[in-house]
Amino acid sequence: MINPVTIKARKTLETIQPYSPGKPIWEVQKELGLDRVIKLASNENPLGPSPKAVEAIQTGLAELNRYPDADATALKGAIAARYEVAPSQVITTNGADELITLISEAFLEQGDEIIVPSPSFSEYDFGAHIMGAAVVPVPFAAGFEYDVDALIAAVTEKTKIIYICSPNNPTGTYMQKADIEKLLNAVKDVLVVIDAAYSHFAEAVDYTDGIEYINAGYPVVALQTFSKIYGIAGVRVGFGIAPEAIVQSILKVKEPFNVNTLAQIAATAAISDKEHVEASQTANQAGRKQLYQAFDELGLAYTPSMANFVLVNVGPNGETLYKELMANGVIVRYGKTWGLPEYIRVSVGTKEENEFFIEVLAGLLAKQI
Amino acid sequence: MINPVTIKARKTLETIQPYSPGKPIWEVQKELGLDRVIKLASNENPLGPSPKAVEAIQTGLAELNRYPDADATALKGAIAARYEVAPSQVITTNGADELITLISEAFLEQGDEIIVPSPSFSEYDFGAHIMGAAVVPVPFAAGFEYDVDALIAAVTEKTKIIYICSPNNPTGTYMQKADIEKLLNAVKDVLVVIDAAYSHFAEAVDYTDGIEYINAGYPVVALQTFSKIYGIAGVRVGFGIAPEAIVQSILKVKEPFNVNTLAQIAATAAISDKEHVEASQTANQAGRKQLYQAFDELGLAYTPSMANFVLVNVGPNGETLYKELMANGVIVRYGKTWGLPEYIRVSVGTKEENEFFIEVLAGLLAKQI
Repeated sequence: MINPVTIKARKTLETIQPYSPGKPIWEVQKELGLDRVIKLASNENPLGPSPKAVEAIQTGLAELNRYPDADATALKGAIAARYEVAPSQVITTNGADELITLISEAFLEQGDEIIVPSPSFSEYDFGAHIMGAAVVPVPFAAGFEYDVDALIAAVTEKTKIIYICSPNNPTGTYMQKADIEKLLNAVKDVLVVIDAAYSHFAEAVDYTDGIEYINAGYPVVALQTFSKIYGIAGVRVGFGIAPEAIVQSILKVKEPFNVNTLAQIAATAAISDKEHVEASQTANQAGRKQLYQAFDELGLAYTPSMANFVLVNVGPNGETLYKELMANGVIVRYGKTWGLPEYIRVSVGTKEENEFFIEVLAGLLAKQI
Repeated sequence: MINPVTIKARKTLETIQPYSPGKPIWEVQKELGLDRVIKLASNENPLGPSPKAVEAIQTGLAELNRYPDADATALKGAIAARYEVAPSQVITTNGADELITLISEAFLEQGDEIIVPSPSFSEYDFGAHIMGAAVVPVPFAAGFEYDVDALIAAVTEKTKIIYICSPNNPTGTYMQKADIEKLLNAVKDVLVVIDAAYSHFAEAVDYTDGIEYINAGYPVVALQTFSKIYGIAGVRVGFGIAPEAIVQSILKVKEPFNVNTLAQIAATAAISDKEHVEASQTANQAGRKQLYQAFDELGLAYTPSMANFVLVNVGPNGETLYKELMANGVIVRYGKTWGLPEYIRVSVGTKEENEFFIEVLAGLLAKQI
């Protein structure tokens, strides 16, 4: 008999850090025996899913024995119409996570480099590590502002991809349009992925989701998701918009039925659910203000955010505070993952959820935790 | 301005053949202006989805704004209980397609080899080509029977994975238990993937889905899907059972939220839907007999099948016949994809669908197409 441990996984897998998702509510309830638990840890839409999406799902249930449409025809059509591009410039994926992996598989060879502002979303590193590529982190400037010159200076002959998460997760800061244009014009033969998952929450006049550069012919993938403003993280739909030649390359590594039928139906409905989008934007603006005001009153420094979360400095006892928040029924994300042990990232919740979080936080700080 | 075509995709992508899915019913209806179109092209369950699965989906709709459970706790528990293994021996994926890609990413380096009986499911080749590994095809013996000695003889120092699709797609034949054991005992340091997607349709006494070898410590991944007998291809759930060390390696390359919430809920319900499973098995047995009898009457040679499809030799006009079937509202799969230009593969449909297919086929053959 053969011992299975003699089957060796690829060496590069040792470079992969396991992803730590926000703990689910049921798990914290069960582990800690709590009645009220709120989750402000995964930047989900606190208003719930798009009602139009939920309603539309009913129309797909009877035919679930059939495979999904491999081309996601209706969904790609709706996205193309919304963003005024051709359907051939759109690729739909099982969440934006999958798009990042597919981009990595399409363009990264062993020994290549990607440039990632640091700290940012961990899936960029994940995709690079699967392919044996190296990650070159470029720190943010003061206040977690993008440092475009440092990004340009980091480019080498090995650089294949630059990721710009804007608004950035976990800082909430964004890259100004002029800086994006400076970057695009400075680099050559490098794919620039503009991850605009949080674009719907960004009101700055000099913000761009990057789509305008695609029809201008720049080698840009503009990345989007249905998991944030549209509130359907549970069914998994992300998408990319890019010049057709780039879409064709990424399609080569896509499994045929990657986006499930109910996800296609839900996302097609959600993209035209204006009422839900606007309500979510309004609630998010109010929620951010509510958090800012509380942090001001508590004397905590925070980074003004263009997204649906706020990064806040809670001081040297960050880890204890994070754990105590959880013990009191508030799940947030601890900053240590991003090398920020004095910070927590809190998603904007409903008015009541924000109040509960502030109340628990204030109580803990008063006890000098 | 930079021209996007200067961004070069990886060289190995040139070896990837695009997957050709069975055409959707709506597409054929639209293209050909037909009222009645039946699809016997993707080995879907003609009885429809598990009713318990469809019912259970309703419980997940209100919380679709939340990310799925990254560990698929309930689903893995249900699978582990059903197959009498530990949850840590189970990995769940976005269809079995994704599992094949993840296995490739975990174990295949550039220049490695995989052994694939030929013809078989094309996704094995796809996974290898993404990683720059070579595919070594081993032809079936007469009657599309597995040739275990030829498979063993094909093993080299570069061989990392052997895929055994049993029952095999598109032939419907299976590898006898004694041959699987001969293979497992003959090879060393090679992962054997037993793709048992069609296991629920196999009645032969010497058939095995491979799970018995896992607790015995063999380096086996037993692959399963919810897309066939359970009838929920639309939501995408596949899974693998393997020794824990192998599961751990594959988990390293898995995206955190790969199986969507509704899929997890549906599959957890479907696996205990005994009534639907048994009805599907009974209907499939009757349907296969119905097809066999018709082929006998029409003088067409077919391969007896342990799956929910039948491979039938329609003679030198295979392509014309395939197209004429489509023009008359019957979508089947043409064998040319597998190097079998005289064959079509027809999925077992409902009694009425099989009758319609037989009627159209007989009519075309009478016209000497």
